Amino acid sequence: MRPQLTPLVQSLPDTVPFIGPEAIERQLGVRLRARLGANESGFGPSPKVIAAMAAAAPEAWKYGDPEVFELRQALAEHLGVPAANLAVGEGIDGLFGLIARLFLSPGDAVVTSLGAYPTFNFHAIGHGARLVTVPFAGDREDPEALLDAARRERAKLVYFCNPSNPMGTWWPAAQVQALIDAVPDEALLVLDEAYGETAPEGTLPSLDVSRPNVLRLRTFSKAYGLAGQRVGYAIGEAANVRAFDKVRNHFGVTRLGQVGALAALGDQGYLSQVIAQVGRARQRIGAIAMANGLAPIASATNFVAIDCGRDGAFALRVLRGLEARGVFVRKPMAPRLDRCIRVSSGPDAELDVFAEALQVALAGA
Amino acid sequence: MRPQLTPLVQSLPDTVPFIGPEAIERQLGVRLRARLGANESGFGPSPKVIAAMAAAAPEAWKYGDPEVFELRQALAEHLGVPAANLAVGEGIDGLFGLIARLFLSPGDAVVTSLGAYPTFNFHAIGHGARLVTVPFAGDREDPEALLDAARRERAKLVYFCNPSNPMGTWWPAAQVQALIDAVPDEALLVLDEAYGETAPEGTLPSLDVSRPNVLRLRTFSKAYGLAGQRVGYAIGEAANVRAFDKVRNHFGVTRLGQVGALAALGDQGYLSQVIAQVGRARQRIGAIAMANGLAPIASATNFVAIDCGRDGAFALRVLRGLEARGVFVRKPMAPRLDRCIRVSSGPDAELDVFAEALQVALAGA
Repeated sequence: MRPQLTPLVQSLPDTVPFIGPEAIERQLGVRLRARLGANESGFGPSPKVIAAMAAAAPEAWKYGDPEVFELRQALAEHLGVPAANLAVGEGIDGLFGLIARLFLSPGDAVVTSLGAYPTFNFHAIGHGARLVTVPFAGDREDPEALLDAARRERAKLVYFCNPSNPMGTWWPAAQVQALIDAVPDEALLVLDEAYGETAPEGTLPSLDVSRPNVLRLRTFSKAYGLAGQRVGYAIGEAANVRAFDKVRNHFGVTRLGQVGALAALGDQGYLSQVIAQVGRARQRIGAIAMANGLAPIASATNFVAIDCGRDGAFALRVLRGLEARGVFVRKPMAPRLDRCIRVSSGPDAELDVFAEALQVALAGA
Repeated sequence: MRPQLTPLVQSLPDTVPFIGPEAIERQLGVRLRARLGANESGFGPSPKVIAAMAAAAPEAWKYGDPEVFELRQALAEHLGVPAANLAVGEGIDGLFGLIARLFLSPGDAVVTSLGAYPTFNFHAIGHGARLVTVPFAGDREDPEALLDAARRERAKLVYFCNPSNPMGTWWPAAQVQALIDAVPDEALLVLDEAYGETAPEGTLPSLDVSRPNVLRLRTFSKAYGLAGQRVGYAIGEAANVRAFDKVRNHFGVTRLGQVGALAALGDQGYLSQVIAQVGRARQRIGAIAMANGLAPIASATNFVAIDCGRDGAFALRVLRGLEARGVFVRKPMAPRLDRCIRVSSGPDAELDVFAEALQVALAGA
């Protein structure tokens, strides 16, 4: 006899959602020259953010404010919603874990797209949910099919990412609003807007925090360039937002994360610059793809999915060839989407490395 | 109809484990002049830690290594155990949440001391456990009573903190080892050693990672002065340690936290200085207490519980009087322990403020 894991935990696989680039370096024994795989922002955080965090480093002995008061106030002002409708957590990943814990009992149905964000699935399955997937419609998530499945399965959670990872595609606000309007009463739409900042005007529906059926998730990890510090937030109806307090790790959002996110939010000029840089990088990634006879998929995110034109095995060989040349990218794994590799935007120097490596990787694949 | 929280979550209270000092400032409209309530380290992190974190701030756009490889390697070397026996998480608080999730099914018994660390209870109750408490024996946790309760209730988890919060008291290694040896086969001893660094030689039993019945928890939040960055670790048998991978937020340990903790571990000279400063601060807090006719309780932690000599209501009035004068301290709330206030060690300037405020607060109480 020994202490026993719960039956649910015993049933969970040992797999993890992602392998980090540091692990790839250790496994392959290569030094990565281009870090373009995790949709981080190679343009970095604002110089003001860096300065604020460096200035706050001597204060790292203090726990972060468990109410994340200043950041929530600033977000409330920025978004035009009350602070009572905002919960800040340890990145969207951390919030997904809490959402799963709040709403899912073993056996509950959770609907998502086949090939959508694996960490959401990790947390849903980790709480015993029954994952129901619907295929992408072409290269976009399929709101109608998600709704059909939600109704049929009496889903507790419905995941929708817009603009969408891993394909970079998006729906305009009107269609997203139609999805919000149509989601069944007993279901919660988990609307992941991690890539919202880089999307064209008219992609994000306006905020309406009176609705109990939708939680919108945003982050400082992508356009704001603070992935390493773990600050994300949920926007939603007040009772749903309050529920996080029942289960969250109250001191979990770090002091430097709060300081950094506050500074990032305050430097919208820098954000605009980054958005412009991301736009140029997307074009450049597209041009590199086309120069190699491949087809970039139009993107509203900070990355571009490149259709390698053949099957998943071929695209995987391209990916491995890139890795062997010190280029970290990732790829979709679901059927049909898996013909692509996914390349994050980044500074020109890293895209130079990518361009050179892609040619060789394609020749080798 | 609206999305329903799980029955378990619906049953959870809206209370939170702790109110942060920032919230106290907002509620009372005072500016805190002495931050001595959360057992943070007012001596701050090492200058090398501050420099390392400041230098890494421009890299905050990168996710932290999800395997926390370098820090785990360094800890393994420092502790003399394999890295496979170490899990790093978002502070001990974060690890408590994961331990609860790994081992607790609704209705399972969890044994702890009445008045011991509330955040452990928060996570245990949050996973549906039935909390069984035994009183402190005098001002120390009571290993025999904990064992009796664990056997009687067939506990899944047994919590023991050594040196102990909130009283600062401790048991020598031999008694702790006896507890480890006697814990029932089907129970896991959660041995919280958050304050281990400031304890006298001979307080921490030697590490034996072959035992499936004990997980030991340590942190960079206390003596190392990195509470705000959330880095704690579990030392245990490999299968228990691996289980964290099934449920943890894989990118949850921040990049700057990993950098800071690694630098902190590498600066043992600074740690020794802090331990000496903590020792002097404990003496000074004791002297301040005695100068006011109060009795300090001998402490192996970075704080001192002061027996205010009357009942809990009186000690609470002292605490409120201190808060009103800008001094943040906390106090035990369990019967009998509640006669005390709990004062964290800190720099002389803050203890000066405490000394002055205590006199006034006592006169007013």
